[in-house]
Amino acid sequence: MVDLKQIGADAKCAADILSGLTSARKDAALEAMAAALIAQKSEILAANGEDVIAAEANGISRSLLDRLTLTSERIDGMAGGIRKVIALTDPVGEVVGGHRHPNGMRIQKIRVPLGVIGIIYEARPNVTSDAAALCLKAGNASILRGGKEALRSNVAITAALRTGLAECGIPADAVQLIEDTSRETAAEMMKMREYIDVLIPRGGAGLIRAVVEQSTIPVIETGIGICHVYLDASADCDMAVSVTVNAKVSRPSVCNAAETLLVHCDVAGRVLPLVAAGLVEAGVELRGCEVTRNLLKDMGIKAAAEDDWLTEYGDYIMSVKVVDSLDAAVAHIARYGSGHSECIITDSAAAANRFSAAVDAAAVYVNVSTRFTDGEEFGMGAEIGISTQKLHTRGPMGLSELTTVKYIISGEGQIR
Amino acid sequence: MVDLKQIGADAKCAADILSGLTSARKDAALEAMAAALIAQKSEILAANGEDVIAAEANGISRSLLDRLTLTSERIDGMAGGIRKVIALTDPVGEVVGGHRHPNGMRIQKIRVPLGVIGIIYEARPNVTSDAAALCLKAGNASILRGGKEALRSNVAITAALRTGLAECGIPADAVQLIEDTSRETAAEMMKMREYIDVLIPRGGAGLIRAVVEQSTIPVIETGIGICHVYLDASADCDMAVSVTVNAKVSRPSVCNAAETLLVHCDVAGRVLPLVAAGLVEAGVELRGCEVTRNLLKDMGIKAAAEDDWLTEYGDYIMSVKVVDSLDAAVAHIARYGSGHSECIITDSAAAANRFSAAVDAAAVYVNVSTRFTDGEEFGMGAEIGISTQKLHTRGPMGLSELTTVKYIISGEGQIR
Repeated sequence: MVDLKQIGADAKCAADILSGLTSARKDAALEAMAAALIAQKSEILAANGEDVIAAEANGISRSLLDRLTLTSERIDGMAGGIRKVIALTDPVGEVVGGHRHPNGMRIQKIRVPLGVIGIIYEARPNVTSDAAALCLKAGNASILRGGKEALRSNVAITAALRTGLAECGIPADAVQLIEDTSRETAAEMMKMREYIDVLIPRGGAGLIRAVVEQSTIPVIETGIGICHVYLDASADCDMAVSVTVNAKVSRPSVCNAAETLLVHCDVAGRVLPLVAAGLVEAGVELRGCEVTRNLLKDMGIKAAAEDDWLTEYGDYIMSVKVVDSLDAAVAHIARYGSGHSECIITDSAAAANRFSAAVDAAAVYVNVSTRFTDGEEFGMGAEIGISTQKLHTRGPMGLSELTTVKYIISGEGQIR
Repeated sequence: MVDLKQIGADAKCAADILSGLTSARKDAALEAMAAALIAQKSEILAANGEDVIAAEANGISRSLLDRLTLTSERIDGMAGGIRKVIALTDPVGEVVGGHRHPNGMRIQKIRVPLGVIGIIYEARPNVTSDAAALCLKAGNASILRGGKEALRSNVAITAALRTGLAECGIPADAVQLIEDTSRETAAEMMKMREYIDVLIPRGGAGLIRAVVEQSTIPVIETGIGICHVYLDASADCDMAVSVTVNAKVSRPSVCNAAETLLVHCDVAGRVLPLVAAGLVEAGVELRGCEVTRNLLKDMGIKAAAEDDWLTEYGDYIMSVKVVDSLDAAVAHIARYGSGHSECIITDSAAAANRFSAAVDAAAVYVNVSTRFTDGEEFGMGAEIGISTQKLHTRGPMGLSELTTVKYIISGEGQIR
């Protein structure tokens, strides 16, 4: 069993040093980290090869295997990802607000690092370098706990990143990997309030639920996306087809892909057959409510069960429901949505306003595909995840979201 | 046992309606709530009288009894507190940011209510109206769970507030009190993720620890203040005396009062006797480290034990330690502080900068008393508490801190 307390204490020490570094020094360290990934490519590929062989022997799914596998190009991509972070503006030190108190003292609100960030994630080894780089740029130490399938890869990647840090005279413990992937160790990590300021789980619904339920450290929930496209009574037919198809099939595995189509009954007869045809042509399996199945009886689609409305397929499957009103669509979304990204297609300003106000989600789209919920698309550069909770931050999390604030008050002996 | 799920569901319904109300309607409701408190003063005082008699019979402490006791003036004060909230700017609807994506779609980031806020608090019945009013102004429903000593008072106060709401055609369930003060019910409340968006504990260290450890709802920790005053090598003697005495004795029971005095060894001989004399004259009991006791041997002060550095006295007691350097002061604060408010008295710009950067707390004071960490003093009007955590918000929490954001993206059929 690894000594988690020692890892925590070392991270805290490193974080104290990181919080005082200039952007120039952090950028130099990031460049050294990127260079070290390239320099140690053969070691990383060798380690990854072992992970892949073990994973194949354990019979993991094809898509997981794809996420796990590194190539020379993918490592170049990881280095490129770090260099993108260098190009972003350092949020630390930003004066967020301030004023002079009537008694003359100056009050400033300043952006500072969070401290130590714990990341618990699954099979993708590229998260290791992405997360470490974003945390570092925002002045935070990171404690990474990846999945067991990628352990050898993660060890090799972390070793490279730490080499880069050490070359720049920055404590290597600014980036640490927990090499014990047991559940017990993860559970212990989730109680390390003394050392870890924030815990960010990245992965499937099961992982996120476990972290939320067990952690005593403040958590930022990320990434579960049960997203809806709602075709309002006044929806433009062409737009309904193109946006729905894009929201579903442009990348079905990601969290901002749509899972459920809701259609106002007034346009279902006219629009739904065209949208359904577009989806089926793109390879999507539809699962419909009773009314949907009647409208599309030529297509012979399956019935949607209660579970379908609750499922993030992450695949070429879409559930379809005809609703009586915009309010019924809003109510369906309130009941089954995950608060990620929701879309209305409408030509009515009143409907757009009502939907935008009533739907409680990180991102509400009017006549735009849900697929845009993304740090780069929202102009914040790289993201560490998409928050579906309301506390701290909501939606894509960039560098600013990896900071907190501190008030600094200065005066000449003011007392109260 | 009360039906917590029903309370949660009713709160969620009310929150949906509140989120769409104009400021004018919320202000009218707040005015009706204030008027109802005055109108129902005799019922509230009668209920409070019963609480006070029961509390006296149970032998609760004098200070708790004082907090529990309401008078006609105190109820006027509660109504006045609600009217102060009316005067504050409604944060809901504020456009926090926004831009146009290269593809033409408009991205807006808008402030919206959190939804349902749970407040768990102890003996002060005035928290009931303060918290309900702040939550309501920011568009949130509140579920209040006060202490058992104040139950009858809280029932009467909540009844008045709900009368005010109902008179304005707003669901009374926007403000609900859990009338079962058992620990089991509190524990169940802390798991109601489905209904409660944020939990804010207000009270002593034991309460806050229990909430942090048990809650699966995101928590905002508030109010534990182990605050330090550090007299640097270049501290002005008069300022050292006046700020230290003010930070300790102007209101010892509150969280921004100082508990520990740290003194640089270079000035301890000259400054400490004067500061100590000022404190003792104001009625403060000192508990010192070895060096302190030697320097102040005429005063015959007690030795500080390890526990003293960890204690929020909330009383006329102060621990005193002589340190070798500014870094030693920073290290002591890192080890024993609660991240609330920390002060340096210094004439050195370098020391001020170093202390401000290195101390990790919500508020760092340079030559100003710690007593200013307060929503009104920081210009945000009334506060619901002072956050000592880093996530979501840090320092005094005003209305803005009771909101989250939502992205609204509108376009003309943009796809990705």
